[in-house]
Amino acid sequence: MADERAFTKGLGRFFGSARGVRIGIGDDAAVVRNPARDSVLCCDPVVEGVHFTRSTPLRQVGKKVVNRNLADLAAMGAMPDWLLVSMVLPPWCGHAERRELLHGIRSAARAAKATVVGGDVASTRGPLVVTVTAIGHPVGRVLVRDAARVGDTLHVSGPLGGSSLGHHLSFRPPLTIGRWLAAQPTVHAAMDVSDGFLLDLATMLDASGGLGAEIDATAVPVSTAARKLARGDRRQALRHALGDGEDHVLLWTQQAGRALAAGGPLSSRARAPVGRVVATPGLWLVHDGRRERVPALGYRHELADRRRPAR
Amino acid sequence: MADERAFTKGLGRFFGSARGVRIGIGDDAAVVRNPARDSVLCCDPVVEGVHFTRSTPLRQVGKKVVNRNLADLAAMGAMPDWLLVSMVLPPWCGHAERRELLHGIRSAARAAKATVVGGDVASTRGPLVVTVTAIGHPVGRVLVRDAARVGDTLHVSGPLGGSSLGHHLSFRPPLTIGRWLAAQPTVHAAMDVSDGFLLDLATMLDASGGLGAEIDATAVPVSTAARKLARGDRRQALRHALGDGEDHVLLWTQQAGRALAAGGPLSSRARAPVGRVVATPGLWLVHDGRRERVPALGYRHELADRRRPAR
Repeated sequence: MADERAFTKGLGRFFGSARGVRIGIGDDAAVVRNPARDSVLCCDPVVEGVHFTRSTPLRQVGKKVVNRNLADLAAMGAMPDWLLVSMVLPPWCGHAERRELLHGIRSAARAAKATVVGGDVASTRGPLVVTVTAIGHPVGRVLVRDAARVGDTLHVSGPLGGSSLGHHLSFRPPLTIGRWLAAQPTVHAAMDVSDGFLLDLATMLDASGGLGAEIDATAVPVSTAARKLARGDRRQALRHALGDGEDHVLLWTQQAGRALAAGGPLSSRARAPVGRVVATPGLWLVHDGRRERVPALGYRHELADRRRPAR
Repeated sequence: MADERAFTKGLGRFFGSARGVRIGIGDDAAVVRNPARDSVLCCDPVVEGVHFTRSTPLRQVGKKVVNRNLADLAAMGAMPDWLLVSMVLPPWCGHAERRELLHGIRSAARAAKATVVGGDVASTRGPLVVTVTAIGHPVGRVLVRDAARVGDTLHVSGPLGGSSLGHHLSFRPPLTIGRWLAAQPTVHAAMDVSDGFLLDLATMLDASGGLGAEIDATAVPVSTAARKLARGDRRQALRHALGDGEDHVLLWTQQAGRALAAGGPLSSRARAPVGRVVATPGLWLVHDGRRERVPALGYRHELADRRRPAR
């Protein structure tokens, strides 16, 4: 058995340094110079058996845990700066596996110009758990989820559904789109689609004071993977798009009738609304002129001992 | 089963807000105003079966994970500001258990005037893992571990050993002592004693360019718990003090012959040296005039597949 010290000793060199890093990996804590007075902070774990399996290539696991956090920063319109990585390693995670994990973490960090400045390693007999903390700074306005208004149009930045076929590992965090949206005064609320379009939408509407939404079934961008999972059943494909989650696209609302600035990173599809915000709480799917109430489909981590009813 | 949303919904209210929190718990990420341009960052997990057992009261687990991180900030001489908490919860961790955990986290945060601003929750079939990220700011100079010099005297801020009898759960992070030491120009290197006095000392000496140390066996502050574990065997008690770990006292070096400022939070015992830094790499215990080389006792997380020899 190697020990944690031999493993962590080379990590400072492996991850490299950056402008603003005063003390990087290797001391009790890192010391960094912040590019702005405000910081945007998030922290998300991935767990073997929940977010990936034993057979998922560990390079992809490393990318996923970093990119999940970067997608949260993207949804705030923030620019990433620093990452901290905590690894809880089981016995099956040997030298080669750890290297793959680290390479994935580094590759996702570099792609976003973020720097790993610290973290910790522990051993376990349980599943692999990797937790990343991402720290960034706002560029102008910060995008929040509790700012949707009645009459806003609803938009998503990319296709939805079928993430389990690979997108949940290979997605790129929409950092450029997030910052661009933050600069648009007509954009009201924004959020990362992680648990499922409808569930995340319900969260946004709830946070915005208990609003509702009508979704235009024909306008929802159903991914190729969602269609593949549904084997040609269009209704089933739509269901995947509405509830699968781990899409890590941006969901936002904007003032109706006011176009976004020309140019920028959005596809023309993302500029077209998928629905609109209404005053009555609840979610309605509009299909062939029929209006059908739908539940907030999505992934929920189940916790023991229910004490309050699920929504 | 309750879902994560019902659980996290009340957390913003539970943890409360603070000056400088622009967006707290509940959005994709938190937004905070930093009290200084520099941030001090660390991230440490606790794992069931490694850092605590199923029977450890969860309030103490919550305190421990926060205080471990605060001890790292203390060792930098930093002031804590923000905390992020990631919880990976197994089925046995029901509503009552989660509340206990949260109460422990909040109580340790409040004691240090730190604010929980975000985090995440996931479920697992494996052991409970709680990871905390602590973000603080330096107050003047930052204390580093790679600054020990030959001839420096060695000091520890409190008794060592026997932490498993309870101290590993009940310790208070030495934040006041850390900040006070950072203001003393004669203090050179400082570090949190977490893995074991000798192992952490070896890390400090190694980081300082490959130095060694002589430890005065009679000067080492052996805790009551270490003596209790040793059942009257003084040599065994000393061994516990030198290698048990999870003491979370500060280990520091200072210029020989130059006293620290009068007053301040140190006990007179902590002002007396426990040894001195020497040029030859290695650790020596000096006892009754005899000088005996000792290994770097301490706790090492074992990782699979040794590829480099342990030191």
